[in-house]
Amino acid sequence: MRDVAVIGIGMTQFGELWGKSLKDIFVEAALKATEDSGVDHIDSMYVGAMSSGLFVGQEHLGAVMADYLAVTPIPATHIESACASGGAAFRQAYLEVASGASDIVLAGGVEKMTDTSDVTEVLATAADQEYEVFHGVTFPGLYALMANAYMHQYKATREQLAAVAVKNHRNGAKNPNAQYRNEITPEQVMTSTMVADPLRLLDCSPVSDGAAAVIVASMDVAKKMKKNLIRVKASAQTSGTIALHSRESFTTLPSVVRAAEKTYTMAGVTPDQINVVEVHDCFTIAEIIVSEDLGFFEKGKGAEAAEKGLTSIECKRPINTSGGLKAKGHPVGATWIAQIIEIYEQLSGTAGERQVKNARIGMTQNMGGTGASCVIHILEAI
Amino acid sequence: MRDVAVIGIGMTQFGELWGKSLKDIFVEAALKATEDSGVDHIDSMYVGAMSSGLFVGQEHLGAVMADYLAVTPIPATHIESACASGGAAFRQAYLEVASGASDIVLAGGVEKMTDTSDVTEVLATAADQEYEVFHGVTFPGLYALMANAYMHQYKATREQLAAVAVKNHRNGAKNPNAQYRNEITPEQVMTSTMVADPLRLLDCSPVSDGAAAVIVASMDVAKKMKKNLIRVKASAQTSGTIALHSRESFTTLPSVVRAAEKTYTMAGVTPDQINVVEVHDCFTIAEIIVSEDLGFFEKGKGAEAAEKGLTSIECKRPINTSGGLKAKGHPVGATWIAQIIEIYEQLSGTAGERQVKNARIGMTQNMGGTGASCVIHILEAI
Repeated sequence: MRDVAVIGIGMTQFGELWGKSLKDIFVEAALKATEDSGVDHIDSMYVGAMSSGLFVGQEHLGAVMADYLAVTPIPATHIESACASGGAAFRQAYLEVASGASDIVLAGGVEKMTDTSDVTEVLATAADQEYEVFHGVTFPGLYALMANAYMHQYKATREQLAAVAVKNHRNGAKNPNAQYRNEITPEQVMTSTMVADPLRLLDCSPVSDGAAAVIVASMDVAKKMKKNLIRVKASAQTSGTIALHSRESFTTLPSVVRAAEKTYTMAGVTPDQINVVEVHDCFTIAEIIVSEDLGFFEKGKGAEAAEKGLTSIECKRPINTSGGLKAKGHPVGATWIAQIIEIYEQLSGTAGERQVKNARIGMTQNMGGTGASCVIHILEAI
Repeated sequence: MRDVAVIGIGMTQFGELWGKSLKDIFVEAALKATEDSGVDHIDSMYVGAMSSGLFVGQEHLGAVMADYLAVTPIPATHIESACASGGAAFRQAYLEVASGASDIVLAGGVEKMTDTSDVTEVLATAADQEYEVFHGVTFPGLYALMANAYMHQYKATREQLAAVAVKNHRNGAKNPNAQYRNEITPEQVMTSTMVADPLRLLDCSPVSDGAAAVIVASMDVAKKMKKNLIRVKASAQTSGTIALHSRESFTTLPSVVRAAEKTYTMAGVTPDQINVVEVHDCFTIAEIIVSEDLGFFEKGKGAEAAEKGLTSIECKRPINTSGGLKAKGHPVGATWIAQIIEIYEQLSGTAGERQVKNARIGMTQNMGGTGASCVIHILEAI
């Protein structure tokens, strides 16, 4: 398999984009990424989206977006892996370039969530319909079960959960594309509306519209287009049990542990060598559990680490410098593509106020549902 | 890129499977394919489905099916390209094996359509929502526009359209997995309920439940598992304009023409060398137009060829020996996988009553919407 690089990035503002359609925002992000890369064509494209059928009544997204982007007749494929749709789309682009089948592939993600009223119900289609959703549980409830189990098992506190949201809003305030650019206090998190005990409104990522795209290329093409190269050092995707009741533990995610092991092995690095990380903080508890499952903190120590500020921009290995799903926004299909855009900017030294010093190796972790799918990539500035 | 073979096949009966769930039928097909191949594991899997979210309220299909198939933590990805979802899923499996990233990959497709009442509305999400569907047109109407244009331009007759349905039911009657195993007469087609003039009920493929799966492997693995090898000789996917109004002609499908050119070039064969073909006959007119766009008949001569019986099992290059979408059934995501199963059986000499003599090179053509996406593969017995 050939070496693969990311050579261009583009994204829309994340937020409530009522004046723009699903097509508008995807095309905006894709054109920005193409322009940023400098290429004059793409060979193929992938569109990550969770449920444009249920959100806005439009399937066949690959073809729709290829047509509106005026790139027909190239292959254009829609990839769905719930909240990991963007990561899975990127992985297919990576495999296609690595295989030698194509040299330049666009990987994008998009979701238009604010045009429908039953967003929580649509998102719940990523859980097990027969054994979870039909019985009344949706994602805030599922993650609340995980939060309760974690707090009980490791004596974690409400304050520690809140620290994740506070830190991510602090970072999001520095990100021009973030949905929320306001800082928040621990007190605000802990007195916000209860959603599913112990998770309150400010523990939850928001409902968002947005699109993001990157251009993936062979190293030969990359060297012609760019001086500073951002290489895809490792790619892994895993599956896990769809329903929580099938698991031995609610406080670790086997799909994340396994995907992390695979990427560390493929990249030949240890967790200590990662300089900057974007993780899937759909709820505050998710960031804590994932930060442990990625090997950054011992099991049960992630909550304490968040409270001590060990994941902030100033620290050794910051987590979610972009503001994370919490503050940047979570237009499902676009989420992971926006993660890799943040890592690309960090490794390129173009992250502005959010810049992590001397960032050379970065990681992105994206998951679907309560971890029934996970996609991890490691990138390196070379 | 490495050589790739198909080494196992499995499918459910197609039809109204009210006693089985979406998961049940996918797992049934996947287990049959795995058993047929003889492998003791799979490295990765792809699930083609058009809209399980709208049909049965379940997204995140890759993870769901990996879990119920008990193959976690392997990567499992849901691919959507409307009615070409199965073909696109197979293509990703092909690329993954060709790249060297995996040796054994399952490509499956599934759809459970009979559990909802608004099937035509769900299927219409594969057309352009803003410019076609919101104004009231759905697929029978879109294909009726194509049929009218074709009949006007080439002086084709109602009888010629009917000949396609009659031939496909004759083939389907010999296929134990077909939804409809009854032969029909031209008169029955031409007096069946009008759906969208000139297309009548028996010009249209039915609403179906079903699943199908194949095992894709590197040639090294294939040689260990099988004596008779079925190689993937060429793979191509294309996109086209999503809406009919963007096209210069209603009587040719540029995405099909282009994908065919690509596969012929990749395989190093001409249309004359193809021994057996499965094409996407969602409506009778579709089979006629596609049979021309694949280069089997001159433009405008496909309808006459169908009436003369030049596409029947006994002829030089039969089309839709399986019964096609018309008689075998059209559970959208499973459709193309069932096509490749037919070609696999034909090239293996195991097609029973439907067997085409001396079939050595076969082709499958699958498309989404009115041809906004197209996937073509050429297989060869070696």
